[in-house]
Amino acid sequence: MTTNSQVTVLGLGEMGSALARTLVDRGYRTTVWNRTATKAAPLAATGAGVAATAVEAVAASPLVIVCLLDSAAVDAVLPRIESSVSGKVLVNVTSGSPVQARANADWARERGAQYLDGGIMGDPTYVGTPSVMFSFSGDRGAFEAHESTLQALGAIAYYGEDAGLAAVEFLAQVAVGYEFLIGLLHTFRLVRAEGVDVAKFAQRVAASIGGYVPLVNAFGTAVADGEYAPDLGSLDVQAALMDDLISHRESLGIDAVRMREVKILMDRRIADGHGDQGFSSLFELLRASGRSSPTSTSGWEQAESTEDRGRTPSASPH
Amino acid sequence: MTTNSQVTVLGLGEMGSALARTLVDRGYRTTVWNRTATKAAPLAATGAGVAATAVEAVAASPLVIVCLLDSAAVDAVLPRIESSVSGKVLVNVTSGSPVQARANADWARERGAQYLDGGIMGDPTYVGTPSVMFSFSGDRGAFEAHESTLQALGAIAYYGEDAGLAAVEFLAQVAVGYEFLIGLLHTFRLVRAEGVDVAKFAQRVAASIGGYVPLVNAFGTAVADGEYAPDLGSLDVQAALMDDLISHRESLGIDAVRMREVKILMDRRIADGHGDQGFSSLFELLRASGRSSPTSTSGWEQAESTEDRGRTPSASPH
Ligand SMILES: NC(=O)c1ccc[n+]([C@@H]2O[C@H](COP(=O)([O-])OP(=O)(O)OC[C@H]3O[C@@H](n4cnc5c(N)ncnc54)[C@H](OP(=O)(O)O)[C@@H]3O)[C@@H](O)[C@H]2O)c1
Ligand SMILES: NC(=O)c1ccc[n+]([C@@H]2O[C@H](COP(=O)([O-])OP(=O)(O)OC[C@H]3O[C@@H](n4cnc5c(N)ncnc54)[C@H](OP(=O)(O)O)[C@@H]3O)[C@@H](O)[C@H]2O)c1
Repeated sequence: MTTNSQVTVLGLGEMGSALARTLVDRGYRTTVWNRTATKAAPLAATGAGVAATAVEAVAASPLVIVCLLDSAAVDAVLPRIESSVSGKVLVNVTSGSPVQARANADWARERGAQYLDGGIMGDPTYVGTPSVMFSFSGDRGAFEAHESTLQALGAIAYYGEDAGLAAVEFLAQVAVGYEFLIGLLHTFRLVRAEGVDVAKFAQRVAASIGGYVPLVNAFGTAVADGEYAPDLGSLDVQAALMDDLISHRESLGIDAVRMREVKILMDRRIADGHGDQGFSSLFELLRASGRSSPTSTSGWEQAESTEDRGRTPSASPH
Repeated sequence: MTTNSQVTVLGLGEMGSALARTLVDRGYRTTVWNRTATKAAPLAATGAGVAATAVEAVAASPLVIVCLLDSAAVDAVLPRIESSVSGKVLVNVTSGSPVQARANADWARERGAQYLDGGIMGDPTYVGTPSVMFSFSGDRGAFEAHESTLQALGAIAYYGEDAGLAAVEFLAQVAVGYEFLIGLLHTFRLVRAEGVDVAKFAQRVAASIGGYVPLVNAFGTAVADGEYAPDLGSLDVQAALMDDLISHRESLGIDAVRMREVKILMDRRIADGHGDQGFSSLFELLRASGRSSPTSTSGWEQAESTEDRGRTPSASPH
């Protein structure tokens, strides 16, 4: 038994328990801790060691996986493990922000520990299979030293030394999914209001999802190159549909917030002489100012002042 | 040559030209008309007959496909074909609203014509292949009589006698796609602001799209049955992430409108005692009142009055 086969898991919720269970199954000598001690019982029954305190749990293994509810929970637990963290590798897979990840990395470094941040996409049931995807970033040496252990948990990817990158990827992927799914739920309301079977409509959406794969790749290339083919048709043709689409939704009391935004963006691109380009070109009108005001919650400019007009706001690269 | 092999196409834009070209290729005796006559020249060169007026074009064939820019264009052309439309089958594949489709069906019926409405999803380049999907609704007899001709154009589906159903399907599918894609473009801004390669990020999104297929089907079933499993995790766990997600976006000036909405909906479901359910359960809070006011553009209730609370707005089935 090498020290690389010893792993500690802090946090035994749905996900933490799935991680610990998988590690035990793969033969890792696993030590667990949870704030509410009773949740450790099922793990203990499968052979995990149960530590009485978080600081003891950290002392037990060179690799410590932290899987708590959120950043606030991490903030509550880190001070409690301070005295045993030196020399350890902390892998925090609690969902959180890049800012938090970078702060945790600083905290660990100052205490002689190495830090990896991680995000988990997938269902706890499938931990240990490629259906669960882990994004990691932070200390490269730590990642390489423990790569095989992390691979036991699912499909893994490493995004770089900046500890915040895994959270960027995670938050971005979650948002892409949530945007799609909340829009889908609103449209379920639309089809139900029209007397259409929602489950069957969902099947038709599911059947057409494959069609988005080449489109998403094309959007990425178009945005990266700043060259916008008439994807989904020219904006001239697409915009002609939007009034019907919006008024249909609103006549039934269905959300049309995003569709109104799309229409305004299309009209602006057309007015700027880009009606021959496609949907992806709306990217040019989206804002990433780095200067957010409390009153502005939408990243696009509805107002057109003379100086705004024709100016393409660009992201600040850093 | 039977009369079923004679087809007229009104409108020779990108899509109308692709339809006419495909019909000529498949051996149909095709008559075309376009407001701007010069656009008929390429079709004439492949063997299509060119009519001088719309009314002559309609007189030439029992089946008349209408493919114009939008409802306004259809409104402009219909009066011009009034005198030759009796006994014909009109198939209007111009994108439009269900209301418009039903009005067109009435117009045709009053003039002794049969009417099919249609929506086209796909790229004109691929007309004639299964990559282009046509939804039809309206006169069933007309659909069955001309099914084989319509099949020459792509993958076809018939949604029922109500002429509006094809437009419902079309507008709903377009909105699902646009919601996904505008959200994606906003998130492209996010990852670029964080220094991440947009094209590579798009590839990772594209690679994970297949994962949405079972999820979309599960959402449809959950909504149809009103039984919400903790899809994507419980709302208790999902909601814990939203503050980080929103503040990350807003700190970079990225749109967070939908994500704020999702957070409020999650919080309300949790407050109502449904924190153990999943994302699909947010459907219960979405509104389809059938009573839209000019000031309300969003189909969800942010305000919680005492009488609203706990009441689940339901769609009006009709
Ligand atoms: N579940 C999923 O489907 C899923 C999927 C992908 C990612 N994730 C992420 O995985 C992480 C864990 O999720 P989960 O499903 O395991 O959540 P969970 O079942 O709700 O468990 C939450 C865990 O956090 C602990 N905790 C909360 N606040 C704490 C505090 N102040 N001090 C100490 N411990 C605290 C809880 O301890 P107690 O038992 O004492 O309350 C419990 O161990 C989250 O960041 C989540 O976003 C989950
Ligand atoms: N292109 C696509 O990728 C795509 C995909 C799916 C669905 N569709 C749908 O297919 C339909 C046609 O699109 P398209 O790409 O062919 O558009 P387009 O290339 O812009 O052509 C528009 C057609 O409408 C005619 N038109 C416009 N206003 C008119 C009026 N007032 N009176 C008579 N004719 C009028 C135009 O005639 P002129 O030549 O005289 O201007 C032209 O034939 C639209 O409803 C669109 O939503 C298109």
